[in-house]
Amino acid sequence: MKFSKASEQMKASEVREILKLAEKPEIISFAGGMPAAEIFPKDKMAAVSAEVLKTVGEKAMQYTATDGYLPLREKIAERMNNKVGTKVSASSIILTNGSQQGLDFVAKIFVDKDDVILVEKPTYLGALTAFRPYQPNIVEVPSDENGMILSELEAALKKHNNVKFVYVIPDFQNPTGLSWSLERRQGFLDIMAKTDIAIVEDNPYGELRFVGEPLPSLAALDKTGNVIFLGTFSKIFAPGYRLGWACANEEIIEKFNLTKQGADLQASTIAQYEVNKFLDMYSLDEHVNTIIDVYAKRRICMLDAMKKYLPDTVKWTIPDGGLFTWVEFPKNVNARELLVKCLEKNVAFVPGGAFFASPDNENYARLNYSAMPEEKIEEGIKRFGEALNEFLV
Amino acid sequence: MKFSKASEQMKASEVREILKLAEKPEIISFAGGMPAAEIFPKDKMAAVSAEVLKTVGEKAMQYTATDGYLPLREKIAERMNNKVGTKVSASSIILTNGSQQGLDFVAKIFVDKDDVILVEKPTYLGALTAFRPYQPNIVEVPSDENGMILSELEAALKKHNNVKFVYVIPDFQNPTGLSWSLERRQGFLDIMAKTDIAIVEDNPYGELRFVGEPLPSLAALDKTGNVIFLGTFSKIFAPGYRLGWACANEEIIEKFNLTKQGADLQASTIAQYEVNKFLDMYSLDEHVNTIIDVYAKRRICMLDAMKKYLPDTVKWTIPDGGLFTWVEFPKNVNARELLVKCLEKNVAFVPGGAFFASPDNENYARLNYSAMPEEKIEEGIKRFGEALNEFLV
Repeated sequence: MKFSKASEQMKASEVREILKLAEKPEIISFAGGMPAAEIFPKDKMAAVSAEVLKTVGEKAMQYTATDGYLPLREKIAERMNNKVGTKVSASSIILTNGSQQGLDFVAKIFVDKDDVILVEKPTYLGALTAFRPYQPNIVEVPSDENGMILSELEAALKKHNNVKFVYVIPDFQNPTGLSWSLERRQGFLDIMAKTDIAIVEDNPYGELRFVGEPLPSLAALDKTGNVIFLGTFSKIFAPGYRLGWACANEEIIEKFNLTKQGADLQASTIAQYEVNKFLDMYSLDEHVNTIIDVYAKRRICMLDAMKKYLPDTVKWTIPDGGLFTWVEFPKNVNARELLVKCLEKNVAFVPGGAFFASPDNENYARLNYSAMPEEKIEEGIKRFGEALNEFLV
Repeated sequence: MKFSKASEQMKASEVREILKLAEKPEIISFAGGMPAAEIFPKDKMAAVSAEVLKTVGEKAMQYTATDGYLPLREKIAERMNNKVGTKVSASSIILTNGSQQGLDFVAKIFVDKDDVILVEKPTYLGALTAFRPYQPNIVEVPSDENGMILSELEAALKKHNNVKFVYVIPDFQNPTGLSWSLERRQGFLDIMAKTDIAIVEDNPYGELRFVGEPLPSLAALDKTGNVIFLGTFSKIFAPGYRLGWACANEEIIEKFNLTKQGADLQASTIAQYEVNKFLDMYSLDEHVNTIIDVYAKRRICMLDAMKKYLPDTVKWTIPDGGLFTWVEFPKNVNARELLVKCLEKNVAFVPGGAFFASPDNENYARLNYSAMPEEKIEEGIKRFGEALNEFLV
């Protein structure tokens, strides 16, 4: 059989392959980007589900419109306006299967073979996985601790005349955990406003802030209408319902709608009705505060343990929110090899190379602190340090 | 902004646009392919949901493996072996968001621009919607009442040297309602066995048989391993959970897995756990029998009403199962124009032109009988006949 060129671009995600290994209960896993399952609102969802099936069960189990259940889209628009400073309504929103599907769709909608996508360096590996089948030329733009470096962005825009979109995660980036400063957001938008290039703003973690004040999203600051904002219930509620959304101008939402019709008709009706009913019956803000409380403690626990157990030659980021810290090793440390040693000690993480579109970035690791209790974080970082010290000998 | 060539191929599905009109409660709709919502097992699902959230809530709300929840994949394999005569195991199964996502994935996995896809004439319009963004050359192979015409298949295979797959619905086809005879299935497979071309067997309705004995699926009869079988819970359980599956050889399932990782990571975990628990707690066969009882009556009601109210110049198919009958008008009747007249009388259907890859097939209509109670079917067909008679004057 002969497969497509798109198919040839696909390779197994390292995170998910590692997750398979990390499923053994004895593994302390800093891999994955899993929310803390023990605080999922299970009992509340049992009440929600009973109510939905009793009152609107026939509609909730039936097909629905491709763009999604209107009351839920209205609530999402309202929440965005409250949380990230936009002024949007339900007509700007379409439901997707998590924000991952939004990433697939932007590539499908914008990218022909060899078209350029600009990304942060490093960037979310799941975005690279989503984009690659469309055979783009993925060009990395270097970032510093305040976001994408604007002179580098200008140079990339000057060099490439077929840039279709810029993909960025300005809040608690995956993998670095860092956020863009307000000045950088403004400067970025000023440069982009001179083009008609789309901006894909991925914001799965923005609400999970432990330190400092929220910053307005690019979607809120933008004046061009070229920003496509991707949001998700995965990190503020639960990923198992597979509900995310895209928010964009009418023309782009119509493209999303057509793409969704061909791809899978619609997001799960029952999931949409249940999440909508949860928002009616309970306070999502309250639940998000619970998440923040738990993750804030785990973050401090991990950062403290890193200070205690990791050698001086290793650097890491101090995230103000989100799920990850990003570790930089001395150049001679290959994180893929380090992972093998760590797995012998029943500790897992994601080697950083997977978060780059370019090769030879092997001296990094992404560590997740949301999914493990504090005692395991301390023990896991201790073993991680031991493996690292053995490696450095 | 400049969109991709894939995006230019997308156009709004007529069915879904018409469904928007048909949402008014006064409309008698024979459009859509909606199951009868009033027999969804709502109360059972309330019990199922309570049980899942109580016993395995943390896992059910969390991320899971891309290929899906193993116990459910095992049950699907067992059901296929019982119902369509295969001998497969869970490792041949991947969960998708309805079988619509399977259609998107086969195109993504196999098709480069201008590659040929062979389809029945007519064929499922949602498949055309799924395939078109990949810019294939969709070639129709004429069918008769026993399935795809084999001499036409051979001619198409001879004419085109870049056929990537043949897409067929051998059981209660959408839109015609007709099934392939055993001889035709065998002859089709004999011809295809001389090639290495994939066969995509779409089987959403196979279990919904009112008349006659089930026939083995192509997947069961095939000896090459080239059949990709697409199944779904949408028509035998409920579409709102968005759970379908693909069953294929290991190499192809691995391609599906990689495609799914990039596209949306996984199907809904909670939906998978709940459908799995439903299969544990209740009898799906019993539920399917309820569906068959209801649809069988509606089918007879529609066929009787058609005999009573439609003019002699109109022909229609007599389906042994499934959801649809397919109407052929005299050449001078344009079904899109007829639909306008019908909507004035608050009756909706899908004009047949949308089910062809080629133009100038406007004298057909697809009528669905699963979604309306009998009194509305009788009344709706009466009005349909009136509109038609006015049209023929």
